[in-house]
Amino acid sequence: MTQRGTSEELRVAVIGTGRMGADHVRRIQQVISGARVTAVVDVDAERAKAVAAPVAGCAAYSDPAAAMAADDVDAVLVASPGPAHEAALLTAFEHDLPVLCEKPLTPDAASALRVLEAELGLGRRRVQVGFMRRYDAEYVKLKALLGTGQLGRPLMLHNRHRNVASPPGFTSAMLISDSVAHETDVTRWLLGHEITAVTVLRPRPSANAPDGIQDPQFVVFETDGGAVVDVEIFVNCGFGYQVQAEIVCERGTARIGEGHAMVTNMAGRWGGTIAQDFTDRFADAYDRELQAWVDATRQGEVTGPSVWDGYAAAAVCEAGVRALEEGGRVEVELVERPALYR
Amino acid sequence: MTQRGTSEELRVAVIGTGRMGADHVRRIQQVISGARVTAVVDVDAERAKAVAAPVAGCAAYSDPAAAMAADDVDAVLVASPGPAHEAALLTAFEHDLPVLCEKPLTPDAASALRVLEAELGLGRRRVQVGFMRRYDAEYVKLKALLGTGQLGRPLMLHNRHRNVASPPGFTSAMLISDSVAHETDVTRWLLGHEITAVTVLRPRPSANAPDGIQDPQFVVFETDGGAVVDVEIFVNCGFGYQVQAEIVCERGTARIGEGHAMVTNMAGRWGGTIAQDFTDRFADAYDRELQAWVDATRQGEVTGPSVWDGYAAAAVCEAGVRALEEGGRVEVELVERPALYR
Amino acid sequence: MTQRGTSEELRVAVIGTGRMGADHVRRIQQVISGARVTAVVDVDAERAKAVAAPVAGCAAYSDPAAAMAADDVDAVLVASPGPAHEAALLTAFEHDLPVLCEKPLTPDAASALRVLEAELGLGRRRVQVGFMRRYDAEYVKLKALLGTGQLGRPLMLHNRHRNVASPPGFTSAMLISDSVAHETDVTRWLLGHEITAVTVLRPRPSANAPDGIQDPQFVVFETDGGAVVDVEIFVNCGFGYQVQAEIVCERGTARIGEGHAMVTNMAGRWGGTIAQDFTDRFADAYDRELQAWVDATRQGEVTGPSVWDGYAAAAVCEAGVRALEEGGRVEVELVERPALYR
Amino acid sequence: MTQRGTSEELRVAVIGTGRMGADHVRRIQQVISGARVTAVVDVDAERAKAVAAPVAGCAAYSDPAAAMAADDVDAVLVASPGPAHEAALLTAFEHDLPVLCEKPLTPDAASALRVLEAELGLGRRRVQVGFMRRYDAEYVKLKALLGTGQLGRPLMLHNRHRNVASPPGFTSAMLISDSVAHETDVTRWLLGHEITAVTVLRPRPSANAPDGIQDPQFVVFETDGGAVVDVEIFVNCGFGYQVQAEIVCERGTARIGEGHAMVTNMAGRWGGTIAQDFTDRFADAYDRELQAWVDATRQGEVTGPSVWDGYAAAAVCEAGVRALEEGGRVEVELVERPALYR
Repeated sequence: MTQRGTSEELRVAVIGTGRMGADHVRRIQQVISGARVTAVVDVDAERAKAVAAPVAGCAAYSDPAAAMAADDVDAVLVASPGPAHEAALLTAFEHDLPVLCEKPLTPDAASALRVLEAELGLGRRRVQVGFMRRYDAEYVKLKALLGTGQLGRPLMLHNRHRNVASPPGFTSAMLISDSVAHETDVTRWLLGHEITAVTVLRPRPSANAPDGIQDPQFVVFETDGGAVVDVEIFVNCGFGYQVQAEIVCERGTARIGEGHAMVTNMAGRWGGTIAQDFTDRFADAYDRELQAWVDATRQGEVTGPSVWDGYAAAAVCEAGVRALEEGGRVEVELVERPALYR
Repeated sequence: MTQRGTSEELRVAVIGTGRMGADHVRRIQQVISGARVTAVVDVDAERAKAVAAPVAGCAAYSDPAAAMAADDVDAVLVASPGPAHEAALLTAFEHDLPVLCEKPLTPDAASALRVLEAELGLGRRRVQVGFMRRYDAEYVKLKALLGTGQLGRPLMLHNRHRNVASPPGFTSAMLISDSVAHETDVTRWLLGHEITAVTVLRPRPSANAPDGIQDPQFVVFETDGGAVVDVEIFVNCGFGYQVQAEIVCERGTARIGEGHAMVTNMAGRWGGTIAQDFTDRFADAYDRELQAWVDATRQGEVTGPSVWDGYAAAAVCEAGVRALEEGGRVEVELVERPALYR
Repeated sequence: MTQRGTSEELRVAVIGTGRMGADHVRRIQQVISGARVTAVVDVDAERAKAVAAPVAGCAAYSDPAAAMAADDVDAVLVASPGPAHEAALLTAFEHDLPVLCEKPLTPDAASALRVLEAELGLGRRRVQVGFMRRYDAEYVKLKALLGTGQLGRPLMLHNRHRNVASPPGFTSAMLISDSVAHETDVTRWLLGHEITAVTVLRPRPSANAPDGIQDPQFVVFETDGGAVVDVEIFVNCGFGYQVQAEIVCERGTARIGEGHAMVTNMAGRWGGTIAQDFTDRFADAYDRELQAWVDATRQGEVTGPSVWDGYAAAAVCEAGVRALEEGGRVEVELVERPALYR
Repeated sequence: MTQRGTSEELRVAVIGTGRMGADHVRRIQQVISGARVTAVVDVDAERAKAVAAPVAGCAAYSDPAAAMAADDVDAVLVASPGPAHEAALLTAFEHDLPVLCEKPLTPDAASALRVLEAELGLGRRRVQVGFMRRYDAEYVKLKALLGTGQLGRPLMLHNRHRNVASPPGFTSAMLISDSVAHETDVTRWLLGHEITAVTVLRPRPSANAPDGIQDPQFVVFETDGGAVVDVEIFVNCGFGYQVQAEIVCERGTARIGEGHAMVTNMAGRWGGTIAQDFTDRFADAYDRELQAWVDATRQGEVTGPSVWDGYAAAAVCEAGVRALEEGGRVEVELVERPALYR
């Protein structure tokens, strides 16, 4: 692929159409800007066809290599099961295609190292791995705060990772390799350290864990920067999905993931920041508003606040200004509401 | 415009290229899916050209009517100053174009009523008004909770609306017509009531308010559903931008806008919900991840988590599984980090 | 009464042995320091006797005047119904006794004014009125924060006052005279203003309010310092007892009563203070610990943490220090637990 | 000592008049009910005299045994340095006196075991150890919640223990033996388990820790009930004093110590309880109110809310009731404020 102009849409092949893959197809088509899905791949050819059908200009494949060889594919999103990743990545390298690869990169260190060596052979990066916590607004804020140096150097990182219930077939080892895998990346990314040792403590398993499964586990990482990191992983906690992190630094701590904004402890005060502007507070609302309008309009529909709503607001504001200027209580008068707006 | 297929992109003319208009151009081009800007209009022709220049296939106009007459315009976004809205809307009606019109619909009730009558004349809705709080995640949750009936019927609604400082030229009346205008819509939309009377109380003005400006104000609405609504509007509060609402119903209350999730009071408990799934907790992160990948790839770049990150995670997880299975502390071994990944 | 040395205990007559009076007897005898109850008065002589019986050296009366004439009474606590307060206060004045008078001082302004004139005739204050919110830790913090001037001058005060359900016989007027009475004092005490006007708005009554009762009400005070104060009073809210206040000042706001510490909004940050010392964080725990020890010891009992607990802590700490110094995991060894400590 | 009637005050000898001892003297004399200090002991005779002087009927001693032999001593509070505890406890046993002994019971397990054996020789408990967290309102709530069984069995306990700065002479080992000592008791008391093994991890020391001090430390306990307990101990965190605990059970978690009430995670919701009654919400305020009144009255003073405050409340409520009944705004009229109440 040659360097593309930014006004051209990226044509993506999505490999794997399970829960994650199908969701990424939806995301590319309906949520984000600048890309569209032109190929969908699944070993189950019927499934690939079903996912491709509603997407204009999208072909269905059962062979990843065939999709990657297609003329209308600029980039690859790998969402197939972990054991299939290595082959898909190496094929993408052959076609010099950029890849977004869902986590894990591959199921073990040896295969990951083979991929790494292959990419090194290309002499440039082609792969972004799907560690999506780096894109979570709260983790991003935590990383940014660390970057300011206000808290001093990080010393400890406490993590909680809880799921309502583990899916069938989930093993004790998968608490580490599937779940804590996220915290390995969070640790490395937030701290900028490599992990040098791991210890796993085994609390008495919960009665709600499937028979024979060691759940919860308490994992301790040591890092080459001298930090100690603990992870509570509890995949049958029953009450909800929670991902929390508290970084403890020399001059304060910061905590995320508790259902509200980042909370810091510094210099005698706990708390968070207050937005300074509506573009900060309501950025997402503006995005959703425009998307809703575009989506409805493309369907030939009009939804959302109506002219009646605009008129009523104007009438109330007029009454309000009179109440301000003249004092007392001012009644609001509206014309009768037309049927169109009921 | 005839009914469009959903796979065709919506071609939008943006009228007005001030702060809001320019931001909407960016949003359509870079954030949301399914639309692109094909026309930009400003009375200042140079400004229109500057905004249009980086957008492929986008023309600049100084006359809204000319833009709306263009072949490649399917819809209009009106972001010009309020006094220009009426004319723009009526022109859009002539071209039968759907419109997203920034608030206010028009500056007063009489002109709003004229627009309403014109739309009634078309016999169908063409206009969505830009009351964007209806698209804010917290307001949406509050509305949804009210819809469940768990809280019983609404009796009161307390609002806080605070800005750091008012812009030059902001008058006492504009606290109502520009700021509380949002709460008029929030009140009507959340409660499903019309506002029947307004009272404005005048606390002693803050020393930080510009000379002669009545700031803060305390506004009370009464509604045809028997609710009492209060709004604290304080546009020179100094400390931040805050928009908060607490609905008080027969069996409980719910509060939003305090920097964290919706908090309810019900049956002896205060608190909020816990996500049940990662697709709920991390939906935005997935969106941002894919957008980041698409944006970088379109620039010919690779950013985000690398193969090295994937390899390191695999190595740590392998050590972790061994620590789990064998007990004790297991050291993590990594190959030397290649320069490509530094 | 002549000036007393601080080492002598105050001998108190408690007038009225309903819910509040009986609770105050318990409080004086078992919770606070430096006082004891020597007289208990109730028009129901049997009730007075029942309350006096377990209190050593406490006599029962049915006539307040007789109790106040007793030699062993230094001070009076008036907890009888409001209409009986005026007579009790005037009698206390005749005996020159200091009085703690439960709210309301008297049921109306005319009788309160008579009491005021009688105390003026004494030429010195004898009465403390039972507005106990002035002694609540959170209100005290809010008052102290206002005193520092950090927030600037107060402009508005928002109050919420919610009860689960109103008692039988509670009238619409009592929402004001019994419940909002507290907020009248909070307003005057926090702001240091007198209230100059009152407006009461009537939301649609809750379906859970007794028939014919206007509940909730929304009350607005104006003050001679130019503040606007609102009070939501809702005595059949169903979900709990909540008393909240948010003061809005020129440079920030502060909020109390939400089940956690005072939260402020100032200069781009929300949050609260962190204790700096264990004597701050655990002051109440130390008080309770000593009271528990004294109470048990007076009963000839030993409760609380035992020597076994002390021994176990010592053994764990020894193992911990070894683990710190030698690295790795150190097992804790304990002797067998004696039956005495099981 | 024979069994005492509950109406007699407990006469306490306080051994040690350092920070803790002097504070306990104040507490017994001025805060709690049912006890007074009749003896104060310190090896520094001048210091003992200075502490005893303002306490009526309190003698000063430099020898603990002499104080314990006094006729007017019913009980002993040991607040001397740890190494002096063993001798004081054994002497108290000789006199058959009940003892409240500040933590640590003794400085090491061997001496603690000797005390334990001596008390066993008495055949009944005489000692309460000063683990005061068992009396902290939040820990008490956490213990009570565990007792209900709602959360299921405990699996993990996460603790944070942070001090602003360590005092001079504080060693690495003292982070365990002085600070984590509290968490050893919290663990044993909350869980009802004995601790069976300890591991201590050493993060890179903070730059703010005194030279050579290993601070922070990350301590892991294992218990005979199969729980895993971690303690972050950080005695030079700089920003405040924080003691937090989160218990993780089979069906939910509960957290205390974050500056607000206990917060639970259960069944899809986070949050806390709402008081149901003013006696719950304002119990402490009532205690403080009465103590303030007693203290002032014993000084011959009257403080707190005045008759003027009572009168003003009555006048506002009267106006409020009229505003409720008649509608509109009602002005409040007050007589001129007398000088006595200014």
